Amino acid sequence: MVLSAEALQGLPEVRAGDDIATLITAALPQQLVPGDVLVVAHKVISKAEGQVRSLDQVHASGRATKLAAEHHKDARHVQVVLDESRELLRAAQGVLICVTRHGFVCANAGVDASNAPSDGTVILLPRDPDASARRLRSRLSELTGVAPAVIVTDSFGRAWRHGQCDVAIGCAGLAPLEDWRGRPDSRGRELRATWIAVADELAATADLARRKDSGEPAVLIRGAGRHVTDQDGPGAAALLRARAEDLFR
Amino acid sequence: MVLSAEALQGLPEVRAGDDIATLITAALPQQLVPGDVLVVAHKVISKAEGQVRSLDQVHASGRATKLAAEHHKDARHVQVVLDESRELLRAAQGVLICVTRHGFVCANAGVDASNAPSDGTVILLPRDPDASARRLRSRLSELTGVAPAVIVTDSFGRAWRHGQCDVAIGCAGLAPLEDWRGRPDSRGRELRATWIAVADELAATADLARRKDSGEPAVLIRGAGRHVTDQDGPGAAALLRARAEDLFR
Repeated sequence: MVLSAEALQGLPEVRAGDDIATLITAALPQQLVPGDVLVVAHKVISKAEGQVRSLDQVHASGRATKLAAEHHKDARHVQVVLDESRELLRAAQGVLICVTRHGFVCANAGVDASNAPSDGTVILLPRDPDASARRLRSRLSELTGVAPAVIVTDSFGRAWRHGQCDVAIGCAGLAPLEDWRGRPDSRGRELRATWIAVADELAATADLARRKDSGEPAVLIRGAGRHVTDQDGPGAAALLRARAEDLFR
Repeated sequence: MVLSAEALQGLPEVRAGDDIATLITAALPQQLVPGDVLVVAHKVISKAEGQVRSLDQVHASGRATKLAAEHHKDARHVQVVLDESRELLRAAQGVLICVTRHGFVCANAGVDASNAPSDGTVILLPRDPDASARRLRSRLSELTGVAPAVIVTDSFGRAWRHGQCDVAIGCAGLAPLEDWRGRPDSRGRELRATWIAVADELAATADLARRKDSGEPAVLIRGAGRHVTDQDGPGAAALLRARAEDLFR
């Protein structure tokens, strides 16, 4: 089996209210077939859903102003980060590591100014990225007759390693984790602790197939059909480690 | 550009002293071309390098015996984990999170009994996975006339997310990080904090192209040539966050 990933070309700049499924369908390099996975950077979904904030309409609290001064940031930007956070885990070295309202642990609660629609605006994560993935999947199914797996991604840093990898923040039609625990290895012995974050590995694969500066937010992955499901499934929420099981907060 | 990943079929069980490059060359689905990336699960490299320990030759210290009792583990296995660790970060919920002698943060210092050559043995990480990658690259170049990028991988858990993703623990002939910091986005604005862990994304991609139970430790990735370098480069050591910059220990 060959796994392949190809970025969609020619997607236009997305605006609030746009039907991304229609734009994606028009840009598909090939007709969808069962087992296909469509990976979409969250920014286009956030823009379509209007998850964009104008900084000139944000009032920075005292806490945001203090944090911003300490970390050389825009106080209104920090305010938006705090608004999107359930908890601030660390503030150091100019980075705010947050638990987002969804439960993701990432820098700046995913709030970002790059690729924003205009200066002075920031893009938030989708309100419910699993719901966004389900809606996109359903609409793609209507338009094409095939329901691909859909993954919504963002780039997250990691605790102990440099650099970012794209991860799944939403998904539908996909088993996000593949569980080999208790299954035999190639010599018939039990495999230990083998529980694969398939959704995140697919997100990483898609990221390699596009260039960050080229307006290629969507990638078609083929050859991963064994992870694609008829049902929407548990979504990327299933990837979140519960606070009580988390050794690193 | 299409990214593709295909597992090599029919690699035999590897034994200490085997020349993996010869085995890989015989199993390549296509002739190597410049820009190819060869991803190899560390276990075959560890076996070829003799990085295997028989538990019946291990004497468990008092500390190992105590930890093993607390976490329902084999004391000799825990002793090997401690031997391979620079530091034990957390011991909880039956998991030992270690800093390996190389500086990787992972469960059980990468010491694993699954896929081991025989019962009562455990496989360690290669002593110097970047050196392993360089040697394999050099030997593949001799045998095929083409020097692919080589990545040595293991499956690591993540601090805040369930499941494991394959990551690079060694590499050669590859730029492990792609730095977009300071480069413009699609609208000419500066991209912020965009420093992509390409080596880890390639490791994740390869993992999707193989099945854990099928004896497919090596994967050929094509279409990622822009990350492949003439020189061996800094290796996966460049992915390690320095302790002083690490907010989560």
